[in-house]
Amino acid sequence: MMFRTAELGRKVSKEEFDQLAPALRIELVDLQQKLRTAGFPVLLVFAGVDGAGKGESVNLINEWMDPRWIETHAYGDSTDEERQRPEYWRYWRDLPANGKIGCVLRSWYSAPVLDHAQGRISDAELDERLARINTHEKMLADDGALILKFWMHLSKDEQRKRLKKLEKDPNESWRISKTDWANWERYDQFIAAAERTIRVTSAGHAPWSIVEGTDPRYRSLSVLTTIRDAALRHMEAIAMKKRLAAALREEEKKKVTTIQPTLTDTADGPHVVADIGRQGTGMVSVRLPHQPTVLEALDMKQTLTKKDYNSRLAIARARLHHLFRQAKAAGISTTLMFEGWDAAGKGGTIRRITSSMDSGDFKVIPIAAPTDEEKAHHYLWRFWRHLGRAGHATIYDRSWYGRVLVERIEGFATTEEWMRAYGEINDFEEQLVDSGMVLGKFWLHITKEEQLTRFKDRQSIPWKQWKLTDEDWRNRDKWDDYESAVNDMIERTSTRKAPWTLIEANDKQFARVKVVETVIKKLEEALERRGLLVSEKKKDK
Amino acid sequence: MMFRTAELGRKVSKEEFDQLAPALRIELVDLQQKLRTAGFPVLLVFAGVDGAGKGESVNLINEWMDPRWIETHAYGDSTDEERQRPEYWRYWRDLPANGKIGCVLRSWYSAPVLDHAQGRISDAELDERLARINTHEKMLADDGALILKFWMHLSKDEQRKRLKKLEKDPNESWRISKTDWANWERYDQFIAAAERTIRVTSAGHAPWSIVEGTDPRYRSLSVLTTIRDAALRHMEAIAMKKRLAAALREEEKKKVTTIQPTLTDTADGPHVVADIGRQGTGMVSVRLPHQPTVLEALDMKQTLTKKDYNSRLAIARARLHHLFRQAKAAGISTTLMFEGWDAAGKGGTIRRITSSMDSGDFKVIPIAAPTDEEKAHHYLWRFWRHLGRAGHATIYDRSWYGRVLVERIEGFATTEEWMRAYGEINDFEEQLVDSGMVLGKFWLHITKEEQLTRFKDRQSIPWKQWKLTDEDWRNRDKWDDYESAVNDMIERTSTRKAPWTLIEANDKQFARVKVVETVIKKLEEALERRGLLVSEKKKDK
Repeated sequence: MMFRTAELGRKVSKEEFDQLAPALRIELVDLQQKLRTAGFPVLLVFAGVDGAGKGESVNLINEWMDPRWIETHAYGDSTDEERQRPEYWRYWRDLPANGKIGCVLRSWYSAPVLDHAQGRISDAELDERLARINTHEKMLADDGALILKFWMHLSKDEQRKRLKKLEKDPNESWRISKTDWANWERYDQFIAAAERTIRVTSAGHAPWSIVEGTDPRYRSLSVLTTIRDAALRHMEAIAMKKRLAAALREEEKKKVTTIQPTLTDTADGPHVVADIGRQGTGMVSVRLPHQPTVLEALDMKQTLTKKDYNSRLAIARARLHHLFRQAKAAGISTTLMFEGWDAAGKGGTIRRITSSMDSGDFKVIPIAAPTDEEKAHHYLWRFWRHLGRAGHATIYDRSWYGRVLVERIEGFATTEEWMRAYGEINDFEEQLVDSGMVLGKFWLHITKEEQLTRFKDRQSIPWKQWKLTDEDWRNRDKWDDYESAVNDMIERTSTRKAPWTLIEANDKQFARVKVVETVIKKLEEALERRGLLVSEKKKDK
Repeated sequence: MMFRTAELGRKVSKEEFDQLAPALRIELVDLQQKLRTAGFPVLLVFAGVDGAGKGESVNLINEWMDPRWIETHAYGDSTDEERQRPEYWRYWRDLPANGKIGCVLRSWYSAPVLDHAQGRISDAELDERLARINTHEKMLADDGALILKFWMHLSKDEQRKRLKKLEKDPNESWRISKTDWANWERYDQFIAAAERTIRVTSAGHAPWSIVEGTDPRYRSLSVLTTIRDAALRHMEAIAMKKRLAAALREEEKKKVTTIQPTLTDTADGPHVVADIGRQGTGMVSVRLPHQPTVLEALDMKQTLTKKDYNSRLAIARARLHHLFRQAKAAGISTTLMFEGWDAAGKGGTIRRITSSMDSGDFKVIPIAAPTDEEKAHHYLWRFWRHLGRAGHATIYDRSWYGRVLVERIEGFATTEEWMRAYGEINDFEEQLVDSGMVLGKFWLHITKEEQLTRFKDRQSIPWKQWKLTDEDWRNRDKWDDYESAVNDMIERTSTRKAPWTLIEANDKQFARVKVVETVIKKLEEALERRGLLVSEKKKDK
């Protein structure tokens, strides 16, 4: 029923087309110039019935506009590279940067629609995969991307005519195989799956356009004017948003009582009540007494003697070496991620792990300020980029959690952006874990006093002075803000699939052993789930 | 892991509590006064571990605030009344009106969490049900409702202690049954289901608060200060929204070129390209030539001779009578809904159907302007109210589509509201159809010329003059706006589950027969799906 409006015989005559096309081309080229500096990417997704003009539309876009600012990606079966990573890795990798237009054929919609049409997945499974698509597209749109999706349509009868015509044409008949006719036989199931898909994934931030594909001239003008109009509106909307934000700031200044944004407002993660006592609204008098936080609940007195440290670390590193090799053989990737206070000992801890590994099997990725190229993408893009192949280990020294720590504290991300990030990060990590990856998330915790001792230590020892910067001192001044942000982070992103491990790191030896033994446990669990650990133990004997 | 922060031993001493409670009660009563005229309802959902204080929290709210403005609903097993309607009917029925607070126990979260914890549904099925919850809550929040959800938590050990303690207390031991202990055994599965549920249903517009339930004083102050703070913020946000809308209008006035909002902007339904030609942005020159619309594609010349009409209608009405009785016996409800131009013949058509039915088996609901009570609720609330019991028929003369027709044209709904309505209506109708209801949606179409003839007819015949009002003439002046709105409506809400039937109604006789025969077909299909139609035909012989 949804496609009835795309079976009305819409068409454009040759005369009309020849009159309109030159003017439209000028408008499109002009538009593209503006888009280049508008600060957002354009994502054009083409799906629909075979023969309805998906590829032709993409060709026309590349022909009528400047192809240097257009990328086209057509996804087929996964490559080796792709199969070794989470499903969406390839889509992240190919995301257009700000100012560019990305055309996508055989996109994230292909497999769900075909799998459902061919009876391989149930309604519930289709909905689950569509929910993943919705999350993906919403994340990009929230970041400013313009997303337009085109469903190119032909009626069953039109498709048959089209296949017949191609078959008869000696120059085109090679295009038509038995598969095409087999697909045509399943037209009704295909359309049913498509209707459900379009309904569930239609959203204001990523609308579907259903285009009647029979007449190439109508089809072309439809697609291109839709892109033109949506892009103009999007640029206008983004300009309007900036003006409104300015008006909002003016409004805020005028008000006598100000309301602090607190986490309940727009966050994606669950709200935890403990903050109420600290973040009042300024209009009420009753405050909850201070309550213990996750960090405060840690026993920071834990230590390890030199002797215990040496013996436990030696055993652990041998075991770790063994397990990493096993994981490699089994194709299990490992991602370890370290966050913590300045001078908490992240670097030293990471070295205790990497020294148990064969070089070439891992990479350590220190996260500093993003590059220009990275800034022109969604903030998660640079982490997707680095995801290792099957069997490899990737170790992050600082991570995507910068979004809800430094970017929150320093105001590099807006309140809306860092609040949204909890949900985005949970989703990202779920995709890692679901793809079979071992994920370790470590917060190295030291007390404020211990940090001062270490800073002073660094100051006084010449070969350690490079480690201490002015920024470290500035960060230290914001200790309370960071502590509050860390508590929120742990509360909202310690999920069952991707829990945080909190490390009491006042004693470096204790911290290192706890980290290494935690990694061992995670690897053992992963191998055991695949039935590989038992045989390993036997081999040891 | 998510619940770790609710196992930290948070508590409030008796002294602290006694000091804070009186002031908080005053603040809450004051807040409630403001809420009464703030123009939105408050929905408080309580879920969590048994014994963690769900019921106690609701009791406290009723004790500390004015219970005349609070409604409490605890849902158990469905009643007869409820089982005969879509699952969410009971939640719609009990929605608090603007200015009221609704407390919900054993809410829409109960069944999904328990079903998953007890292994009755898979992850995908849980997600599907959570998606329904998200749609429901978003719809209410979009309409202005403040939704707060509390997860009252106890650790496994705390819950055991609590059960033991109650068991030992002679006054309380009756509370504890074998079921409670059986549930406790499944604590881990329960918590896993809860974590997934909270993660998937956490949203800025309906946040979860996780509350440590061990200490009643802490728990009470947590819940009540959270409600207080969120309600204050919500009132402030709504006031801010109004100020921003005013600022936006000022902004708009300043601009030279104005951008028309078009359907691609924020609509939930799929965008159909045909509109581009008609709704330009004012900044571009190239327009698509006019393309046929769904209404234009109708063959309006179709007629029926008096003789054909009489014989076909007689047969059809007998058949209809029979089928309605069968449907009633099978417990199948029928909802028929008529929209169409003024003077298109809705009333006469409805009478041809109802005259085939036993009075008492149906009701006809004419939709006029909403009552005060209806205005204080979501616009769909008044349609949920009227949903008939199993076996009954409900016939709407005009319907929920007023939202995207008259409310759109007359500006009673904002652009954002009527655009959102397509998705909301699709969802509503899906729930009706999924519950087993037969749904017929009819658009009675006449040409503009035919309407004029009928208007003049009404004007000249004294006993028909009451049928023609000034409003009819005013609506006629807006014919083009309505035609565009009707096309959009059909394109966006003619789903596979709930398709529109377009009736060429220039000839009344043709129209009536087509409607009655369509209803017959729908009833036959519904009975056939249940294997009841075949035996019926045999009986006829």
